[in-house]
Amino acid sequence: MTRTFDIAVIGATGSVGETLVQLLEEREFPVANLHLVASGESAGRSLSYKGKNLRVRDLETFDFASVRLVFFAAGSKVTQKYAAQAAAAGCAVIDLASGLPAAQAPRVIPEVNPAVLASLTAPYLLTSPSAPGIALAAVLAALPEQVRIHRVTVTACLAVSSRGREGVSELARQTAELLNGRALEPQLFDRQMAFNLLAQVEQTDSSGHSALEQQIAGELKELLALPDLQVAVTCIQVPVFFGDSLSVSVQAESAIDLSQVYASLEAAPALELVELDDYPTAVGDAVGQDVVYVGRVRAGLADPAELNLWIASDNVRKGAALNAVQLAELLIKHYL
Amino acid sequence: MTRTFDIAVIGATGSVGETLVQLLEEREFPVANLHLVASGESAGRSLSYKGKNLRVRDLETFDFASVRLVFFAAGSKVTQKYAAQAAAAGCAVIDLASGLPAAQAPRVIPEVNPAVLASLTAPYLLTSPSAPGIALAAVLAALPEQVRIHRVTVTACLAVSSRGREGVSELARQTAELLNGRALEPQLFDRQMAFNLLAQVEQTDSSGHSALEQQIAGELKELLALPDLQVAVTCIQVPVFFGDSLSVSVQAESAIDLSQVYASLEAAPALELVELDDYPTAVGDAVGQDVVYVGRVRAGLADPAELNLWIASDNVRKGAALNAVQLAELLIKHYL
Repeated sequence: MTRTFDIAVIGATGSVGETLVQLLEEREFPVANLHLVASGESAGRSLSYKGKNLRVRDLETFDFASVRLVFFAAGSKVTQKYAAQAAAAGCAVIDLASGLPAAQAPRVIPEVNPAVLASLTAPYLLTSPSAPGIALAAVLAALPEQVRIHRVTVTACLAVSSRGREGVSELARQTAELLNGRALEPQLFDRQMAFNLLAQVEQTDSSGHSALEQQIAGELKELLALPDLQVAVTCIQVPVFFGDSLSVSVQAESAIDLSQVYASLEAAPALELVELDDYPTAVGDAVGQDVVYVGRVRAGLADPAELNLWIASDNVRKGAALNAVQLAELLIKHYL
Repeated sequence: MTRTFDIAVIGATGSVGETLVQLLEEREFPVANLHLVASGESAGRSLSYKGKNLRVRDLETFDFASVRLVFFAAGSKVTQKYAAQAAAAGCAVIDLASGLPAAQAPRVIPEVNPAVLASLTAPYLLTSPSAPGIALAAVLAALPEQVRIHRVTVTACLAVSSRGREGVSELARQTAELLNGRALEPQLFDRQMAFNLLAQVEQTDSSGHSALEQQIAGELKELLALPDLQVAVTCIQVPVFFGDSLSVSVQAESAIDLSQVYASLEAAPALELVELDDYPTAVGDAVGQDVVYVGRVRAGLADPAELNLWIASDNVRKGAALNAVQLAELLIKHYL
């Protein structure tokens, strides 16, 4: 008989939390009891799971000792406040909000660095990286070994759903306001988001880099086990509801064999390679999919050691909920 | 008494042509007679210039001998078909459509490489570069001399107006269709443009690079007089009506002094530097302006020889019509 596990999803009413619950059902995760948990204001609502309505519990009074595995999908502050409590109660923790230091909860993508788990001990604390970090690492890790990357330059174009449901509703509202000739009233975003690109996502520090840009650079180095990798990241917010798009330029130590690159990307199960007569887009291809799309694969104009790529990925599903569920699958298979 | 010139604008009914005519008026260009010219289907329409309605003439039957200076703003094929005729009639030619080889019509930006004109002889054929090329070169040329650039990686996010009026109306139509739950019918763009990013602009060649990407790389090398510059360009189409945005990463030979960079960008008359507590956007800042906006100026996360920038520029005005008019001003001041 299959072992089953008592599971809690913290932040179950957010868009990532809700997708995570759907994926547990879709992928037939061996759940004994599923506890949906959220902050006070969302507690008491109901969510559907396997045809039943589950009532959302209040995080404040939740007993972590009642579960074996906890997903944290409610923002880094919630992770920081409650993860220690969960771990102390013996729970494995999968944090989707990057609230814990990498040394305490290593970043893992099942198809990139699953071996990291072997070095951990119970109760197992893992970080599911940022959505752009997952998409980027999934593609770069699939490059042939001969491509020795020393620099990655990426412009990550983030969908408004990276800011949760509020981001989605604000883009819709702003767009309708502009099309109907009404005055624009930015709320979540600090200025016009509809029909505009915002050059940064949240605040930057005194050096000009945003927290997410620094996080992505750190994730790449850790996930690819390339501590000396040079990473230049610019994260921008674009008027797209769902799906991140990444424009990537890779510099390698030596000339790249493009046919090898094609063969490796084509063979990678977590990727969908789009050939040169076409290109992938977030909306048309990636959204709703479990794979990361990669296209526009080309060498440099005058540098054979340069490789350029376009990546499209579902930021909520592949970039967050799915990776977390896949981590949980890995944990229960080998470690719990 | 000021000398005046008979001028023709080919492609006067397009968005760039119309802006060009406005700028001739705004900037009090010494026009004797202004001839508005377009292809057969637009001929016969009227456009306003200095309070008068000017009738648009048919390009097919236009006599270039009647003017001294011709702006070509009607696409590269029109330039290729008619520029020789204009030059043979003794006209100076300013091509906004990059229809002529650089050897025949060098690319010039008045604030970047005006000295090129001194090496030319009558009748003077000049190319006004692409909109992203102008924005990028204007910023890079303003960097302090100590910054010796050897590589530029750019993701150019192009507004739909880069595809003319049809691009603008298609984004508006697609957006309304989606917001109203109607079926989407892409026409000019090959797929959904509203709330989506398209990974390439027009077709790519067998190496995967689009014509515009190759053009921008060539423009940069020529404008900055850096023939060995490595340039990685990705041009994408974004759901923005007006204003191009460029995410740029520069690699220099040695560590960059950021305070020098700030001082040089601040001092450049054609630029508007936005400090780190803010950032420029296409819609909120650049559109309608004669300057190129530059912000998010920061070093690399771990590489002091790296410089990252965000550029926003009005693609129709600064990126096309204004540069052409400024070239004409330079020509009549020193050469015609």
